[in-house]
Amino acid sequence: MDKPTPVHHLGLDVGGTNLRLGVFADLSLVEEIRFQANYSAICKQYPPAEAWQRILLATADAIRPLLIKYPDLQAIGIGFPGFIDPNTGILAQSPNLPGLQDVNLGQDLSALLGLKVRVENDANAAAYGEFYQLGQPTGGLLYVGLGTGVGAGLVVNGGVWVGHHGYALEAGHIIVVPEGRLCGCGNRGCVEQYASATGIIEAYLEQTGQRLTAHAIAQLAEAGDSHAQAVYADAGSKLAQMLASVLKVIDVENVLVGGGVVAAWPLMSAAFEQRLAHDLIPVLRGKIQLHITRSGDIAGMLGAALLASKV
Amino acid sequence: MDKPTPVHHLGLDVGGTNLRLGVFADLSLVEEIRFQANYSAICKQYPPAEAWQRILLATADAIRPLLIKYPDLQAIGIGFPGFIDPNTGILAQSPNLPGLQDVNLGQDLSALLGLKVRVENDANAAAYGEFYQLGQPTGGLLYVGLGTGVGAGLVVNGGVWVGHHGYALEAGHIIVVPEGRLCGCGNRGCVEQYASATGIIEAYLEQTGQRLTAHAIAQLAEAGDSHAQAVYADAGSKLAQMLASVLKVIDVENVLVGGGVVAAWPLMSAAFEQRLAHDLIPVLRGKIQLHITRSGDIAGMLGAALLASKV
Repeated sequence: MDKPTPVHHLGLDVGGTNLRLGVFADLSLVEEIRFQANYSAICKQYPPAEAWQRILLATADAIRPLLIKYPDLQAIGIGFPGFIDPNTGILAQSPNLPGLQDVNLGQDLSALLGLKVRVENDANAAAYGEFYQLGQPTGGLLYVGLGTGVGAGLVVNGGVWVGHHGYALEAGHIIVVPEGRLCGCGNRGCVEQYASATGIIEAYLEQTGQRLTAHAIAQLAEAGDSHAQAVYADAGSKLAQMLASVLKVIDVENVLVGGGVVAAWPLMSAAFEQRLAHDLIPVLRGKIQLHITRSGDIAGMLGAALLASKV
Repeated sequence: MDKPTPVHHLGLDVGGTNLRLGVFADLSLVEEIRFQANYSAICKQYPPAEAWQRILLATADAIRPLLIKYPDLQAIGIGFPGFIDPNTGILAQSPNLPGLQDVNLGQDLSALLGLKVRVENDANAAAYGEFYQLGQPTGGLLYVGLGTGVGAGLVVNGGVWVGHHGYALEAGHIIVVPEGRLCGCGNRGCVEQYASATGIIEAYLEQTGQRLTAHAIAQLAEAGDSHAQAVYADAGSKLAQMLASVLKVIDVENVLVGGGVVAAWPLMSAAFEQRLAHDLIPVLRGKIQLHITRSGDIAGMLGAALLASKV
């Protein structure tokens, strides 16, 4: 019997806590599965080799039912947090999944499932998904995702640009406060420590002694809490500081900010705009199209699925 | 009579003070003309429209004898300081040649000389020249030029990458000291104010009250002057700080530092290495090939000439 013509694409968005699987027909999400896979906790609990086997098997188990339900699936795309070699697909290191080193998710998973698997850095996958959601604009797209960390990805000439070693657009580790807060990457003062959910939580803790979720801090800010407002304003300002530096290097027409933290964008936008106008190179002022994501949070899965369909 | 087969390429390197013209056969410099054209002074002395006419005529006058001597020349390449639109060739603005705005050097000069003229940002031209001097390495080349200012250019996939508006790699205006020294671009704390000849002169003046040339300060440093040594070490450190940020965005294999200031590289290298090791993203440490220019200072002319031959 002939294989059915492929209609569906499968994309995974792997995080430290959640695993999400999206089945797409063209750009439409047909089915989504989301659950707490706790890969970050697995990495902390088990020795690296065992943690890797557990993550691999849990990922394969999550995928299998979808392969049965959608038998036309021919490739799987995975957005994975970490440094991935574009030539070999090997994950060199993942700050959010400590202990994993030099593992080959694509190859190992492909061997288990008998399908092609393409693995891409999660922010690059999200950048690619947003690029399609925006209607494939010319002029380049810089994606910045504010989540647990700060990720970024660049789409130019219709493709994701990953750089020579695959480590381009590690913009979350641009230093905005010399000798500032310690970052998971080993440096101090990375923008990730200020403009991510983690950074917002940390800043509010420093100011008030209270450890709340980023969402709770946003609610307090909306209710008038001046510390909470200051923390979000500072996140917006530090994000702009980083973006101004990045835009002095890559010069694209479109910037899209996504990730869970942008739900609180109104708390950040004034400080963001002010700082960007201040720091941006004068000839670029007014020439950057800023987009706040409207794709919900499916861009990572969509981008991974689209990239896999091109393997 | 048929036109002679083109053997020679002409490249100009335009600065605020000096104008340099290089005739090349392949990658070899056949003849060089260098003189003080003082374009920066002309811009300060005359109203913009008149300054532009004077600069245009002076440039044409400098070129004409070479067109007679090398009748096979079919195109002219010019490395020009400022923001140049890659599609139209229009110079939007030049921090070193104040007053010039929205002029089209390529078109105006082509009309005067009857030859194709390609104008490129001076640092982009130098990046392209160094790329050829290095033997066209794969893996990308980031060029940083330390001269009166700090310029940069990127060569990937064999071509200069100028970005959507033509303003990519304005790395000299990456802010390394928030609210630091005022820069010609209008911002404060740009790396150009610390790691260029101008920055070195200014820093020594701040420390000692003496205004000396960068070369004289280097000689004092070599003779043991601790202020002079500190100023050069700080220039190296600030350069590394900027480079670490840029390499978090673009991820190339090769970095080449050129420009007049690198004559004093031994005074900068220890602080540079230390800061780069500190700020660079850990997975990239040890993976960047650092080159100090060995091409003298012909890379700008060579790159312009090579780019013109591809018009």
